[in-house]
Formats: sequence, structure tokens, C-alpha cells
Amino acid sequence: MRFKFIAAAVGLAVANVAVADEGMWQPHQLPELESILKAKGLNIDVQSISKLTEFPMNAVISLGGCTASFVSPKGLVVTNHHCAYGSIQYNSTTENNILENGFLAKNHAEEVPAAPGSRVYVTEDVVEVTDKVNQGTDTLTGKARFDAIEANRKALVSECEQDDSYRCNVYTFHGGLEYYLIKSLEIKDVRLAYAPAMGVGKYGGDIDNWMWPRHTGDFSFYRAYVGKDGKPAEFSKDNVPYQSDAFLKVSAKGVQEGDFVMVTGYPGSTNRYRISPEVDYVFNTAYPLARKYNSKYVSLIEENAPEGSAARIAYESTIAGYNNYIKNYGSMIESFNKGSMYTRKQQFEKDLAAWINKDSQRKAKYGSVLADLTALVDESQQHNQRDRMLGYVHRSQMMSSARMLYRLAYEKQKPDAERESGYQERDIPRIKSRLESMSRRYDETVDKAILLYFIEQYAALPSDERVAEVDKALGLSAGFDKQKQQALLDDMYANSVLSDETKRLWMTDLDLAQLKQSSDPFIQYAHAIFNVMKDIEDAKKELEGKQQAARPALMEAIIAYNKAMNKPVYADANSTLRVTYGTVGGYSPQDGLVATPFTSLEGLLAKNTGVEPFNSPEKQNELIKQKLYGDYTGGMNTVPVNFLSNVDTTGGNSGSPTLNGNAELVGLLFDGVYESIIGDWDYDANLNRSIHVDSRYMLWVMDKVDNAQNLLKEMSIVK
Amino acid sequence: MRFKFIAAAVGLAVANVAVADEGMWQPHQLPELESILKAKGLNIDVQSISKLTEFPMNAVISLGGCTASFVSPKGLVVTNHHCAYGSIQYNSTTENNILENGFLAKNHAEEVPAAPGSRVYVTEDVVEVTDKVNQGTDTLTGKARFDAIEANRKALVSECEQDDSYRCNVYTFHGGLEYYLIKSLEIKDVRLAYAPAMGVGKYGGDIDNWMWPRHTGDFSFYRAYVGKDGKPAEFSKDNVPYQSDAFLKVSAKGVQEGDFVMVTGYPGSTNRYRISPEVDYVFNTAYPLARKYNSKYVSLIEENAPEGSAARIAYESTIAGYNNYIKNYGSMIESFNKGSMYTRKQQFEKDLAAWINKDSQRKAKYGSVLADLTALVDESQQHNQRDRMLGYVHRSQMMSSARMLYRLAYEKQKPDAERESGYQERDIPRIKSRLESMSRRYDETVDKAILLYFIEQYAALPSDERVAEVDKALGLSAGFDKQKQQALLDDMYANSVLSDETKRLWMTDLDLAQLKQSSDPFIQYAHAIFNVMKDIEDAKKELEGKQQAARPALMEAIIAYNKAMNKPVYADANSTLRVTYGTVGGYSPQDGLVATPFTSLEGLLAKNTGVEPFNSPEKQNELIKQKLYGDYTGGMNTVPVNFLSNVDTTGGNSGSPTLNGNAELVGLLFDGVYESIIGDWDYDANLNRSIHVDSRYMLWVMDKVDNAQNLLKEMSIVK
Repeated sequence: MRFKFIAAAVGLAVANVAVADEGMWQPHQLPELESILKAKGLNIDVQSISKLTEFPMNAVISLGGCTASFVSPKGLVVTNHHCAYGSIQYNSTTENNILENGFLAKNHAEEVPAAPGSRVYVTEDVVEVTDKVNQGTDTLTGKARFDAIEANRKALVSECEQDDSYRCNVYTFHGGLEYYLIKSLEIKDVRLAYAPAMGVGKYGGDIDNWMWPRHTGDFSFYRAYVGKDGKPAEFSKDNVPYQSDAFLKVSAKGVQEGDFVMVTGYPGSTNRYRISPEVDYVFNTAYPLARKYNSKYVSLIEENAPEGSAARIAYESTIAGYNNYIKNYGSMIESFNKGSMYTRKQQFEKDLAAWINKDSQRKAKYGSVLADLTALVDESQQHNQRDRMLGYVHRSQMMSSARMLYRLAYEKQKPDAERESGYQERDIPRIKSRLESMSRRYDETVDKAILLYFIEQYAALPSDERVAEVDKALGLSAGFDKQKQQALLDDMYANSVLSDETKRLWMTDLDLAQLKQSSDPFIQYAHAIFNVMKDIEDAKKELEGKQQAARPALMEAIIAYNKAMNKPVYADANSTLRVTYGTVGGYSPQDGLVATPFTSLEGLLAKNTGVEPFNSPEKQNELIKQKLYGDYTGGMNTVPVNFLSNVDTTGGNSGSPTLNGNAELVGLLFDGVYESIIGDWDYDANLNRSIHVDSRYMLWVMDKVDNAQNLLKEMSIVK
Repeated sequence: MRFKFIAAAVGLAVANVAVADEGMWQPHQLPELESILKAKGLNIDVQSISKLTEFPMNAVISLGGCTASFVSPKGLVVTNHHCAYGSIQYNSTTENNILENGFLAKNHAEEVPAAPGSRVYVTEDVVEVTDKVNQGTDTLTGKARFDAIEANRKALVSECEQDDSYRCNVYTFHGGLEYYLIKSLEIKDVRLAYAPAMGVGKYGGDIDNWMWPRHTGDFSFYRAYVGKDGKPAEFSKDNVPYQSDAFLKVSAKGVQEGDFVMVTGYPGSTNRYRISPEVDYVFNTAYPLARKYNSKYVSLIEENAPEGSAARIAYESTIAGYNNYIKNYGSMIESFNKGSMYTRKQQFEKDLAAWINKDSQRKAKYGSVLADLTALVDESQQHNQRDRMLGYVHRSQMMSSARMLYRLAYEKQKPDAERESGYQERDIPRIKSRLESMSRRYDETVDKAILLYFIEQYAALPSDERVAEVDKALGLSAGFDKQKQQALLDDMYANSVLSDETKRLWMTDLDLAQLKQSSDPFIQYAHAIFNVMKDIEDAKKELEGKQQAARPALMEAIIAYNKAMNKPVYADANSTLRVTYGTVGGYSPQDGLVATPFTSLEGLLAKNTGVEPFNSPEKQNELIKQKLYGDYTGGMNTVPVNFLSNVDTTGGNSGSPTLNGNAELVGLLFDGVYESIIGDWDYDANLNRSIHVDSRYMLWVMDKVDNAQNLLKEMSIVK
């Protein structure tokens, strides 16, 4: 592993500073936290968790959007049920409803392919490439700077991906202050090995989502397969299980209140260093609107896809996803209004400015950073409502498929390295699998109703916020007429071939000239608005290029200030491997109530109504009634189902192994409590709690409920 | 005080029996609980709390439906805000909205009359009268027995009420196994002295009703006035404050978790000894239907009385009352379905039967008691749906006024002693005040809409469950036609004078012949159905008479059985003075959550949205922000607002003083938690928690928020 410490900028000196268990640390930062980690309960050598190719970090993998870990030398992967949900759904049929009933492959041969596009990424190398990314950009500004950075990043990625077993990405840290090139083995043959029934894996459903008390068995097992040569390969019967370098032992003893835990995983994105005008806009405008329009989106689906219909089934996971966001926004708005984040942020900026101005050298260097970024943020918000509405209009499956196909053909005219990210050769398989899986999540009536509604909203924008080409293409030039619009859409859908999976995929091979001649109305729309949308995109890149200079300048000041205050700094989450540590424990969600850290089988049974999402399998109910706990109590008077800790996590951490001080798997992180959702912006030590499935419950279900003895034998269980 | 211990039947021997803090004990039972009470923390002589005319029991009074207590020698009464709500509303006007803003009389002259019919009852004497009530009933059965018992009861009451300063009642204990005559001083001039703003007294409103965490300042103050001669008198400017024999000292120190508390008050009604078929019917049929129809009732009001309208204001307290019931039924159904009451009840009946059958003498005496009562219960349920629907039809204000007037005239033909209870001379003032106050809670559109809806429901009954006279009077003989029915009701309301308060009251003086000639359509309706409704009533009395024999027989067996098991027996609540004791403490409402026993000012502020019902007064918010706690923390880091204990209470206990081991007032009972609502049927030691306003919060509000120094000076405060 080529790995380089970030020296000055984020060097830590945390010696005697009392800090909350806040922070999503890059593994290489951990040695500097050694005294804290040891004091809290880490038993293994802190050096080992700082190295990606050593145990236990080499057992922690990414599924792209979720985290997972190897739990056997034969490529057995454990992650959340909700992370494998698409694959379970993909293999589920009315005859063999494995989503409802669960699935267990008794041997390798019975394992079934995961949903198209499923991947296992094993991070093998992390290199700082800040200088390379910034090369030749010093004199540039705006879009020119943005494009130069993009070109540098692509070149790095392209070079790294010479070996097509790997997927490489350049990740931005601290808003562009640092860049890292991360190289991951890309395993393409992923199969479903085991999933409990939905009444276990999704027990509580949307109702309990983000909630405590929780009783969800949110775990499932994949297996990674590679070619006989040990290299990643597309699905083939001849493939063999991947020989993982390392795997986690699974604890049947679990944890107790107050125990040390750490979570390693790939948190997606946080905004802990955004400036106050951004916070103001997001919480007072963007989130309230997102909640409103997403709620409308869900109700349009529900109105147009009656319960029990095939259409509704196709949209179940879309609805679940939107409901998750709606709850998410609701919680964040609530926490924001109750809390003091905004005033603290403003205070911090005042303190920072005062500190900067106290020293003439600092003043010269950082004196204008905050004002510079503020001006750019203001500018970037000018057309937000237009872009929001266009975004919803183009979110229609037909619209997005057409625009993706058109853009692909456009980009394919250029040499690979010059293409827009997302449309390079390396991206084509993902584009295809997205176009492929669309059929499973599409219904014409629903898609059309959503499109009609958002066209109406778009049409209600002030005329100077509308886009003439869009107006023309949608027949809005003379204003919005619902009946006329409905007729136009009916016509477009009737004459489009894009609902046909084969034709959609076939179109990925067409060149731009061919697509321009297509009579498909959605392709024609994509063509008609292409140039103007590209102009809008370029204008954004111009601003982005400016921000790419301004934000690192501010972050540098913030880091310098924190260093002066003796405070460690971790970077915002960016889908790279991080470690967070903390303690098992409850919290007080409100005055007069305490959430205790464990839930139990008995609590699970008490919630059972037999009706989804509280439909625990009968066998599980019987086992609970008979108190058949097996050896999975860890000294408690029950089998603990879920537990709370104060580790600092976010979306993308789903499926992350929760490790004890010996780096044994004691749980899987799968959610945060309602009051922690705002954690993406602000970590509150009193309220920030993550929710984990207890390994004891996972093993108990495997052993007693689902009789997954083949997997239990394969794993190393610490008793 | 003439007071007689109930010897054999309910004699207690609790010495070494561990019992939960269950039980609503008659004061005379307390000496037998002495060892438990002392161990738990009672510091005063247990004999004193067993005597109604000694401190502290003589300070505890009834408002009829609520409990209250004297807190000064000058008749100052403290009770719940929700118990004084009607009086606060009665004195509230759009110009002087004291319901919203609160009310404080700075001196006696500023005190305002409570709502018509408001009373303070001071229990002065309790005598067992079982023999007298049962006199001459041995050979009787059915309605004859019922009537004989009624006659005996009335004779006892009438004799007792020779002194018109008193109100007397014969109360039934253990389903008729024992009767007690209770004599209470009836204070008729009750005035409002002080009520906090609704944002304190009803903070949380219907949303928080029955809920924990709670932050409600549910307290208000009345003052009892009597004539210059010291005897009860109707309101007069010349009246003087009642000189109470005793009053409670109010603690500014409050209680801590684990402290002993006892609550003395007038719990209304419990059903702890109902048999399993009754439980089955109530929870599987009656409560679900009541929930359904009451919800409909509320939605009819809401649809027909738009928010903000005068009609809506008139119905606010009706809606609140119904919503309370709806939540109540919902909780009980939920608890019943989750819990094991029904199977435990069945098990108890099996055990009881086994115990009875083990002894031939017992078998001879009690062998058929359970079967006898079961048969009567079955019989009594036959026409329940008919009676339910007729009940809702006759609940219309016009219907009930008309029927009450007609019944009064009918009863007035008889000598007073022979009249139906509720229609004797002693009852007439209450009837009049009810007819009087109706105007404040009436709106024609609403009343008509409700009546129409329930006529439609009644009309949908099978024909053999309908009543021909009712059908005829409502024009239903040819079936229900909504438009026709609407027209008929429009006509009835248009031609009725009953919406006129003066005319309603004037009609109370008419005799039956005069009423029969009335052209008022509602009076005509009352006349048309009178005989048949009386037949239905008599059939019920026939059954009631039979149950009055069967139920005491079963209770005698239950008491004997419990005595054999060394278990104390308390009687079901029946609006007589009881004492319950327990401990301040939280509970776990569900797996993974713990309700802690105190809430704080900070928690109150956190709930504040400024919008009703979470509209804490600005002054209170400011005081909280500034942490101006005064001397009301009792050693805590805040002023505690509400607290939990496991005392055994029910409706009617509202306003009851919560006393510490020294019999100082440390709070007012005002509610139970959601999980305790089923407590009327079944006490669960894990879930049964009562909610109290903390005396520290009450005093803090009086001192800091409302500046009620005149009252604080008048009370004896323990610092």
C-alpha cells in the first residue's frame, strides 16, 4: 500500500482534549487518536486499523452506496437487508416470493445472481493526488479551472484503471483542499446467499424507519465470486468464490452498555463545514420544498398505482426511498428549528473571523475567504427553483432514459478521456444496467401522472425563470393547459419505444446522428433541450470552478484555526473508508423519556400484529414465547435484537460492521435515531445515536429461525 | 361520625403478603394496611387518615365528578384546571378571554361565580345501610326487587336530606353486597378565584392528553362560600367564605423518585370484578363501536361547526370530552389485545370454581353464582345495538331536553318518594341548571346533523330490533329517506321553542297534561315514545333486579376466596372517598424506552411552538430561559413540572391532592398514562402510572408567572 500521511493541514494533537465521540476518521488518522481509543476499549494494535490492507480494514468492503464485510475466507459477505433489498426483490416472483419469505441457499450452487449492476468493491490502495489534480490550474478560474481539474482527475482514474479488475476514483476532501485516488478491486459477480423473511429483515418497515425502539433484523448475506484465475469477472457458472484476504469473526457474546464499539464503513456525504448562508438556505428553503415535492411524488404514485396492483409492486422501493427522504427532511427541519446549529455556526464564523483578523499574516491569507465563498453561494442559488422544477420534470423514467441515451451518444463523439464523467467507457455497463432495471420500477400511468404534475409546476414559474426551449418542446409557449398537456403526454408515451427494455438497450449503441433522426418523442425532447441544458450545466461548472478555489481556502483557514484550538479535524464524509468509534448507550429523546440501549425478543413480539410491517414469522414468535434463546444472550435475560451507540455515521454506512475492542463483529450498523438525522450537518453528543442489529440476534435467527447451519459453520463464531 | 368496620367480608390480613400498590381503599380499611403504609413512608398516624372528620381526610372534598381539597381556612379550594374548565369558560368572553389568558381575583370581591350547578361536597358521615336497603327484598325478584331497593334507598336519602344543607346518597359496594349512606355538606356558592392561562393549565391539550412526557399546569382555585350563618346557600353577595375545618399545607419541597405518596379522592367507577363474558363483550364489541360512533360524532361537529365559528366555540368542550373518550377506548382496546387480562380472568374463574367445588358447603352456597350471573349478562346484551342507537338518537340536545322535561312532568305526578331517581324535588335544581347551560353548548345545525346521522343508523337496524313507536314518530315506517328525513327535522327544529332558554326553563313548571298539549315537535316526540321507552326501561330494571341478587352472591364468593388466599379486597370505585398509596417512579412503556418520573421547565419550553395547545405564555418562557427557578426546585436542577407514581386512580380522582408521608400536598393528580387507561378493568403494576402536577410547579407559576401573592399568602406553604 502506498499511503502518505496528510502532514501539516490535518495533523492532530488531541492529547488532553476532551472530545465527544464525533468524527468519521480516515484510517491513517487513527494512530494519532491512540490514547483515546485505548482508554475507551480498543484492544488491538491501533496501527493495524490504520492500514487498509491489514486486518480488520481489509475485511470491510463497499457495495457502492452501502458497506459490507467479509465474514468467511470464501467471499461470504454480510450487509444490511435493506442494502440487499434490490437483489432480493429482483429474485422474487409471485410463485417464489423470497422477499416475503426469505431465502437460503443451502450450498453455493443454490446462490442466485444479485440485481444487475451489483458490485463488491475492495479498497486496495489510497494515494494523495492533490498536486496532480491541481496541476496547471493555478492561473485558471471558473469553468476552465473546473474542466482542468476534471481532466486531471480523469487522467488519474484512467491510468489507474488500466487493469480492468479495478475501479478507481479521485475523492475530494475538505472541499478540494485535498484529493485522494482510491483503487478498489471491482468484483462483478455477486450472488445472494441468504436473506431472512421481510418480517425479520424489514420488521417495522417505514413506520419504524429512523425510530427507536427498533426490532429489525436488518441483515443479509451475499457471496463474491471471481473467475477461476482469481480475477473479477462477469457472472459465469464457472466462477468461484472470492478468496478474501481477511474476514471478520462474529461474536455470539455481543456487547453490554458502556462497551467500546467502532464502525468501519463508507459514509456517503456530510456537510459539517458548510457556511451559515448555506445552512440558512438548506433548512429554510431547500429541505421544506424537497419535503413538499417528494410527498407529492409519493401521493401521485399511490393515487395512480392502487394497492395490490402490479404497478404498486414496481414502485414499492421507490415509495420506500421517498418516504425515507421525507421523514429525513422532516426530522432535520424539526431538529434545526429546535436546536441552535445556525446560531452556533454564525458564532463560529465570527470567532474564526476574529482569529483571522488578529494576525496580519493570517489576515492577508484568509481575510476574505468567508466573504468570497458567501458571494459564490449567493450566486449559485439564483436559479434554484427553476433547476428544482426541471429536475423533477426530468426525473420521469422516460425523460431520464431519453436524456441519458442522448447524452451518452453526445459524449461518445469525444475521446474517452474528454467525456463527461459518468459517460466514459467505464460507466457504460452501469448505464446499461440502469436502463435494464428501469422496467422493474416503471409504470406508464404513474410516470405520466408525475410528469404532468411537475410540468404544471414548472409552467407556473415566472417567465424569466422558464427555459424557452423547454417551453417549446413541452408545448407550453402559450401557457399551461392541463387537458392539452395530458393529450400531448398521451401522445408522447404512445409513440415512444423507450418503455421497451430491448429497444432502450439497443439505443445505447446508436450514435448522435442516428439518435437525432429518431422519431421517439422523448429522444426528440432530449435533443430539443440539449443545448440549453448544457448551457445551464456549463454555467454551474463556472461557479463550481470558482467554489473549487474558494472552499479549500476557507477549509484551510478552518483547519488552521482548529489546530490553534487544539481540536482534531476530520473531513466531511465522501464515500471513502472511515472509522468512527464510541460507546454502547442510550439517550434521552425528550424530557421525561429515556431510550435504553438494547431491545429484546420480547419487545419484538409485543410489536407483532401479524400485519406488515409488523409481521414476525410464526416460527420466530413461537421460539420467543418458549424463550428458546440458545447461546445468544451474552449474559442478558433475552436475545438482544438492536442496540444504540453514539458512533458518528451517515448514509453509506449502512451494512457497516460494528466491531468490539477485539475487532470482532458485534453488530451491523443500519440506521440512526430520528433525532440524529440532522447529524449530517451537526453532531449533537446528546442526541446522535446509531442503531445496530445485534450479532446475537443475527446468529439466533440464522440458527433457530432459518436453520442456516451451512453459513454458521462457514463463519468463525466467537462464543 | 358513625362508622362501622366491614367485619368479616373484607377484613384484611395482609401482614406478610407482598402486594403491588394496587387498590382504592375505603379509609376505614387503612389501619389494616398500617404496616405496609409505614414501611412505604407514611409518617402520620394511620388512624387519622381512616377518619373522615379528621385531618387530612376532612380537607378532601368532591366537586361531583372531580376531587378537590381545601388549602386555606377560608374555603380556598384547589383542583385541576380541567375540573374548573367549565367555570373558566363560563366567565370567558371575547372581550375578556380568561380561558385563554387566565384569571386572578386579587381579593374576594373579584371572585366570580362558577358555572351554574357547581358544587362543593364535604363528606361528613358514612354509615353502612346494607340491611336497611335490603329490608323486605328477600322474597322479591326482578323489577319488584329493583323497585323495593330503590324505594328503600330513597327513603334513606330523604330522611338524611331533611337538613337541606346536605346531599345524601346510598352507594353500592361490591355490586350490592354492601350499601353505604354518605352524607355530604352541599356548598352551593362556588366561585372562581384563580386559573392560569390555558397555555399553562391545558398545555399539550388533546395531543398530550393521557400521554407522558407531560408538561401541564393542570390546576385552578375555587373558593367555597356559605351564608352568614355558616350554612350552605345559593349565590349571594352577602355570602362569606366557608370556614373549612381543616386544610392541606402545600409543599414547596416536593417529592423525589422513590418517595411515598398517597392520593385521596373520589374515583368514579372501575370494573375490576367483572366476569369474563362481560370483558369479552366490552372489549370486542362495545368499546370498538363506541370508538367508531364517538369519532363520527366529533367529525359531524367539526364538519358542521367550522373552526373559529361561534358554533365551534360552543362545542369545544363537547369535542374535547369525546376526544378524551375516543383516545380512552383506543388505548383500552390496544392494551386488551396486547395483554392477558381476558385469559387471566378466565383462569381466575376456573380457580374460583375449583375452590368453590372443593368444599361441599361452599359448593352449596356458591356453586351456581358464576353461571347465574353469566346467564343474566347474556340476556342483558340482547338488545344492545338497538339501545346504543336509540341512545345516540336521544343524545341530541333537543331530544334530551324534551325527554327530560316530559319525564319530569310524568314523575311530578307522583309523591316525591316514589319518583324515579334523578326526578325528585332534590334533583330539580340540577335539571334546571342543565337545561339552562344547554344554550352554551348548542348549535342547531350541529345538533340536527348529528340527529340525522344517528336516525339513519337506527333505521338501518333489522326491523325486529326497531321500535314501532320510534319509527312512526320519526316518519321511518316506510323506510329511511335522507331528504325526507332532513325535511322532517328542519320542520321540527323550526317549530320547536326548546332552543329558547327561557321557554325551556318555563316548561319545567308545566304538568303532564299541559305538556301533552304542547305543539312542540320534540315534546310531541317525547310523548309519542314515552310508554314504549318506559317498557324498555322496565325490562332493564327486571334484569337489573336479578343482577342485584346475582352479583353480590358472586362477590361474596370472590371475597371469601381472596380471604382464603390471604389477599386484601377493595371495592370497585363508586364515587366514594378512597385512598390509594404508592411511590414516585417511572416505567417502561415499551421495550427500549423508559419514562422517567419527572418532567422539567426545560422540557416544557422545548415543546413550546407558540401554537395552541403548545402555547406557553411568553412570560413563562422568559423565566425558563433565564432559569429563574426561585425556591421551587426541591433540590433538583430545575422546577419539576409533572411527575409519575404508581397510585391506583381513575376518572373522578382528577384534582385529588397528592400527599407525602406527612400529608402535605405535593401535587394534584390529573391524569394517567396511556398504558394505564385499561386500569379501570385491570391494574398492571408495570404499566399503571398516574400523572401529577408537581406542587413546586404550581407554586412557581403562582409566584413567578401569575403573581398570585394574595393566594400564596393565604396558604400554608412548607418550605
